[in-house]
Formats: sequence, C-alpha cells, structure tokens
Amino acid sequence: MDTIEALRAIVGASGVMDSAEIATRSAGVLRPDTLKARALVRPKNTEEVSKVVRWCHDNGLGIVTQGGLTGLVHGADASAEEVILSMERMRAIEEIDPVQRIAVVQAGVVLQTLQEAVEQHELSFPLDLGARGTATLGGNAATNAGGNRVIRYGMMRDMILGLEVVLADGTVVSSMNRLIKNNAGYDLKQVFVGSEGTLGIITRLVLRLREKPRSQDVAIVAVPTFEALTKLLKHMDSALGGSLSAFEVMWQSFYRLVTSPPARGKPPVSQDHPYYVLVECLGANARLDSERFVAALESAMEARLVSDAAVAQSDSDRRAFWALRDDVVQVVVGGMPVVFDISLPLAAMEQYVATLRMDLNDGIGEHKLWIFGHLGDGNLHVIVQVQPQQYTTLRPKIEAIVYGPLGHLGGSISAEHGIGLEKKSYLSVCRSGSEIALMRALKAALDPHGILNPGKIF
Amino acid sequence: MDTIEALRAIVGASGVMDSAEIATRSAGVLRPDTLKARALVRPKNTEEVSKVVRWCHDNGLGIVTQGGLTGLVHGADASAEEVILSMERMRAIEEIDPVQRIAVVQAGVVLQTLQEAVEQHELSFPLDLGARGTATLGGNAATNAGGNRVIRYGMMRDMILGLEVVLADGTVVSSMNRLIKNNAGYDLKQVFVGSEGTLGIITRLVLRLREKPRSQDVAIVAVPTFEALTKLLKHMDSALGGSLSAFEVMWQSFYRLVTSPPARGKPPVSQDHPYYVLVECLGANARLDSERFVAALESAMEARLVSDAAVAQSDSDRRAFWALRDDVVQVVVGGMPVVFDISLPLAAMEQYVATLRMDLNDGIGEHKLWIFGHLGDGNLHVIVQVQPQQYTTLRPKIEAIVYGPLGHLGGSISAEHGIGLEKKSYLSVCRSGSEIALMRALKAALDPHGILNPGKIF
Repeated sequence: MDTIEALRAIVGASGVMDSAEIATRSAGVLRPDTLKARALVRPKNTEEVSKVVRWCHDNGLGIVTQGGLTGLVHGADASAEEVILSMERMRAIEEIDPVQRIAVVQAGVVLQTLQEAVEQHELSFPLDLGARGTATLGGNAATNAGGNRVIRYGMMRDMILGLEVVLADGTVVSSMNRLIKNNAGYDLKQVFVGSEGTLGIITRLVLRLREKPRSQDVAIVAVPTFEALTKLLKHMDSALGGSLSAFEVMWQSFYRLVTSPPARGKPPVSQDHPYYVLVECLGANARLDSERFVAALESAMEARLVSDAAVAQSDSDRRAFWALRDDVVQVVVGGMPVVFDISLPLAAMEQYVATLRMDLNDGIGEHKLWIFGHLGDGNLHVIVQVQPQQYTTLRPKIEAIVYGPLGHLGGSISAEHGIGLEKKSYLSVCRSGSEIALMRALKAALDPHGILNPGKIF
Repeated sequence: MDTIEALRAIVGASGVMDSAEIATRSAGVLRPDTLKARALVRPKNTEEVSKVVRWCHDNGLGIVTQGGLTGLVHGADASAEEVILSMERMRAIEEIDPVQRIAVVQAGVVLQTLQEAVEQHELSFPLDLGARGTATLGGNAATNAGGNRVIRYGMMRDMILGLEVVLADGTVVSSMNRLIKNNAGYDLKQVFVGSEGTLGIITRLVLRLREKPRSQDVAIVAVPTFEALTKLLKHMDSALGGSLSAFEVMWQSFYRLVTSPPARGKPPVSQDHPYYVLVECLGANARLDSERFVAALESAMEARLVSDAAVAQSDSDRRAFWALRDDVVQVVVGGMPVVFDISLPLAAMEQYVATLRMDLNDGIGEHKLWIFGHLGDGNLHVIVQVQPQQYTTLRPKIEAIVYGPLGHLGGSISAEHGIGLEKKSYLSVCRSGSEIALMRALKAALDPHGILNPGKIF
C-alpha cells in the first residue's frame, strides 16, 4: 500500500493531503516558501496519531509534527520524503475546571482560543506571545515557549501539569497529571517539553490556570544607564512584591523605530534616552496596587534610576504602550533582517552589546541594529538589517559575530525560540560535548530509529 | 585492592568509613536503626565523586547518595553490599550574585545555610520546609522538595537553573546554566531533578534567588465548610494578586492537637470550627499590602467564607501562628504514627476524607486521625496513629485504605516526599504501566547496570 492510501485508511480520505496539495500551503510565518512532504496527515484524536506513528515507524518514514507554523528556527521543516503530522483537527478544549484551576486540551488548540475561553471563568492562562492567534498549545509545549510574562509566570514548561504523548513506536503514554505536586516517580512530561518534537508527539495537555488579574498598571520609563536598568529591575521586582509581570527593555534605536513614521506609535517620553522599559504590574486591587506602582516609580526617579516616565492612565494608553513593544514588524521595512533570540547574564550584557556594535561595524559595514527584549529573563532580541542583496552573503558573518562571544559569557544562542535546523550548527557554542552526548543518549533511548522530527537540534 | 583501600586512594584516608564506623551513625530522622554499607565515602569535590563512581561502576558496586537523611520514604537506604556516597564535605557556597540573582552551591550545602547567606544580600531562597536545618540542597533537588510556599514559588525544580551531575559511569555533565530562559537543546536538568538519585548524582547547582519580601501578613482563619475552603483559596489568591505565599489548612483534630496541652500553642480562634487556614502574604509595601490583606479577609467574612479570624499583629504573633502549623511533632506523642503525603484534586477531597474516616473506623478500629496540608497545592498530610503494639500489623491495612482510592480520583501517593523503598509497591496506584515502562527505559539508558541508588522507586 502506498503512503497516502495507508494513511487514508487510518484517518479517512479527507484527513490526508498528497504532495501536490501540500505544495499549496505556506511553510509558515515570514517564510517565502511552501511546505513539502510525502503526505500531510490530520488525525482527529490520540488513537489516530498512534496508528499513524506506528505505520510510519513500521515503514521507516520520518514524521514532522506541525502546529501553527509560527516557529522561527525551521524546527518543523519536512523533507519531501517525510510525513507531516498536522494537529489542525485536534482543537478541542476538553475541560476547564475553575476549582482545580486547570484546562485539559488537545495539542492543536490555538493559544488565544484558550486564553479567551478561560477568561469567561475569571481565570487566566498567562502564556502570551505575538503569535498567540496562530500558535498552538502543543507547539508551545514542544518548544517551551516564553513570551512577555515569563518574569512572573515562567515559561510554558511551568504551566504544564500533565501531558499525553505518542512515542516513536506508536505507544501512547498518558501522564495527564492534574496536581501541582506529584513526586510519584519520574516527572516524565519534563522530558518532552522543549524537545521540539524529537522525543515524542504531544497529543493532549493539562494546563495550570491562574486567577484573572483584577488590575493592570503599565508605564514606559526612560533609563539613563545600563547599570540603572539592572538596578531598576531589582527595585521594581522588590517594590511590587510578586506582581511585576513585564520588564521589557527597548534600546534607543528600537524605541525610535517604533515611535517614528512609518510606524504609527507616538513616543510617550522623548526619544533621546539610551534605554526604555515597559514595566507592567498585574495586581488585585486597582486602587492600592496603582498607589504602590506609582510609589515604586517615584522612588526609582528619586534614586535616579529613571529619567522620565509615562504612566498609562487608561485602557487605551495601556494598549498603546504595549503596541510599541509589539510593533516588531517595523524591522522588516527595508528588507528581511537577521533576527536573534539570545540570552546572557545581566552583568555581561552591556559589554556584550558594546562589542557587538564594534564587531558589526568592523565586520559587515553599513547596517541597522535594533535590540529589545525581556530583560528580566536575560533575553535579548538582536535584529540586524543589511541591504537585501547582501543578506545571503553576510548572514553567516553576522551569526558568527552575534553567537561567538556567548559561550564564553555563559549565554545561550536560543532563549526561547529553540534550535530547529537554523541554529543546529551553533549548538556547541553554548552546550558542551558531554551535554550534547547526553541529549543523543536520550534521543537514542526514545527514538532509536530517528523517525521523530529528523535532523533537528543536533 | 579492597573497597576501603581503593576509595581511600581517591579521597584520602579520613574520607572513608568502614562498616564498623558506619554502624555508629543514625539512619536518619525518626529512624530507630543505624546505617549500614560496605563503605561510606566523603568526596570533597566533583572530580572525587567522578572517580568514586567510576571505581564503583568498574567493580559493579551499588552507590547510594546521601544528603541530610531527612527523607521519609527510605529513599537513601543502603544495603551492606553498597557504597554510601555522602555529600557532607561538599558544603561550599561558591557564589552569590545579587544582580543575576543566583547562587552557585555544592550539593551538600544545608538549605538553611543558603537561606541565611542570601538574606545578607537582601535576597531570598524561597524553598522552605521543616527539615531546613539538616536537609541538603542536593537532596532537595534529587527529591524535588516542596514545602510551605509552593503555591507562590513552586517546588525545588522551579528554583534550579542549572546543575552538574555525575553519570553512572563517572562522566561529569556540567549543565550549570545561569539563565532563566535557555531553549538551546534539551533541558537536561529536568531529567535528574526528582529522580531520587537513580539517574545521576547531583554535585553542584545554580539556584534562582528572589528579592527578599519586605512585608509579611499572616492570619489564622476558621472556615465553616469544605466548599468555603476552596472558595477562600480562589478568593485570597485573586485578592492578593500574586503575593499569596501560604494557604495551609488544618482539619479540626490537628488544630486541637497543636493548640492543647501538652502542645505549647494557644488557639488564636476557638477550637470548634471544622477547618482552619494559615494564610500568608509576602509583599513589598507594609502599609498598602497589610491594608489589602485585611480587606481581602473582610470581604471573605462578608461572603461567609470565613467564620472567625485572627490577624497577626506582631512578629511574635507571626511566629506563634506558624509554630502551630509546624508543631507536627505532637503526632508522635503516644507512639509512632503512619504518616502520609498524598495529593488529590480539590473537588474530590471532601468525599475522600469522609470515606477515609469511615474506612478507618470500619477497618482498623480505635485510632487517631490528623489531617493538615498545603491545600493550595492539593497536598494533604494524613496521619494515622494506632496503639504501638498494633503498628506493624495494621500498617499495611492503613496504607491500603489511604492509597486505595487515589488512583481512581486522579490523586498521587506522593505529593512531595518521593517514592524511595517505602512507597514502591504502591507506585502503580497512580502511575500507569506505560508510564512505569517509560521510567524504566530512562533508567536503562542512563544507568544500564543499575548501580545508582539500586531498587528505589520501581
């Protein structure tokens, strides 16, 4: 039986696309190319996933699981010989339990769909990122997604209580724990979260929900020096007692980009400062938490950690301030840039950026450099734009300049986007030989024939 | 060369105890017996651990790693043929970085030692549990310790950024990540945290620190019904906006035990209510946070979720309130009880306890039953005391009554203590055959000869 026929026998005729149909689909966000694969199969439930995987296993075919295709590291690319397993029909929110404060979902549920569904129960699913309208919860889990509020709520890993996974031979392991505390044997879910689909296929999840915040205070503040930035982070974190929910730093060039035409944003404070921070507090008591928020900013100004500040006075202000930080699309005006997602210790960051500027000036000539990121997590997005006709030739040089110093500084080449194919050749910059050997040992134990997301990570 | 000689060649003469010396040491907290082993070896650093492990590996000897011996599930028991690897000489706090907010420690550092060291930097290491003065950070990591403030800060797993581990063949894998966000390949530390020493030996850790809280509000409240308890949890969590740090429930019999002679505690509210909760808020602003805390309790009283409340007015009140919750030692007056550490969904808890009472009355006759626990995490400590002369015969029956319903209810036989040897025969109550098979596959991949903490968990 050929692949298409065999898969149709499992999931029904409409559940399988052949290579011609597949080629009509985009390869994903910011991608000019289209998908390719031997077949694209769309199971409706775990049992169908298991049967598809077993068939591929028995026939030696590689399987690439796809969610919303919003990843940025070619982590879900398939070759023409592989089978794409798409989660697009597994979109059921099976349960929301407001007492236990959990949601049970299939892996194909879109992040924003869950966010909106739990809000109706006065609850919050606090993972949040730009791709919320397309990214799936299974993809968020497989890549351990980060986003805007990691400083308060952690990464996707921290929001997963249980999961169900299909192993490389089709075995279903249901580990749908609903408890915050469960030390009964190994915490198996940890092995699969962040493994980019290479160790198993996540089919269902139990997610932890939080009470919906009752107040939101947001400010854009200007900061005079990098040292003041790190002190301000400590100051706000301490002064807000557990409710600091974002500390998003914008270097001057990025702030100017998103507050000048053609961007639609207006600068809440002047464009002449070296650093800007969007500070957010998600709280419980609008009056008392706002008073505390403003008092914390005032004492920061007295301590000269903040040069100027604009505090949002309305929902429209709050939206406008966040819109600045989120207007990342401005960086593609003038041609596709090279986008990085790195992290490094705060103590090394100022010197790293200074060296980066010099090395880029020396190494690639004329370019634009924008930096912003989740400073509370040590995570910077570094964006370098060169002339479009130079993109291909300069890209490896830019990568070497950005990644080169990170190993020495204890940084990471991927804070939140993962490795995929794109960063694979740089993995050894920040992971040792013994670490990579151990990763390979885990891969060999769980997927001895290498059929799950072949070639990714290492 | 015999074992003692070979190990002395690695760590020096004073670093090794023979079986006679070993037999003079207690087997641990609440244990009447003494240690036994072929040898007890005390390496000073990772290199020595690696050499010891390699020697044991090459000579086919089992290795049991020991920290503070405060575990309650026989998770660090050694046989007369095995080698004990004690972390007692690996007690260096290597670094405290107040900007990055991390500590780097050797695995043998005692929890309280680190807590006190970071306080000098106006920081907090928020893991906290009764054994803080003896338990080691390596042991906390190997067992994924929980404790009193999981609702706010998570378990030990959530506080570990990086670790160094010695594998079964002596290979050192250094994964000393210092970053909150690092998605560069598999998050290897997750495999070892909570694995009870069966997959590798944790030698060093990078731990995440928090800003030291500036305010602490504590109350003991009486609650009329179980339904009100679950509503109060949601209410306080929501009303305190991220700063609820403990929600410790005491059933009436436990409250009476710790507020009546011979216990030294006095009841802050009368002893006639069915449930009591110690509620704590660790905040930032003494005035505003206290105002918010009291307002939250007042609205809970208006909503009849709380029948009576005593709010701590001083440090001595706060200590006295916590001392009630912590006075667990009262349960050993009258003979050693059987102590359980279970978790289950909130919606099932009331019925579970009612059934438990009936089954104990029907099944074992006269006994005492005390229940308290971290309700915010679904974690209950159930303590059953029978006549000392009946302990041995009734214990299996009591275990069957307590554990029996948990599988059906989605509960766990171990919320925070682990499995060790003690709960091994009950593991299948709450973990499926496919889960246990996957645990075994991980064990086989990392410790094919089964020399690390032999026989524990499964």
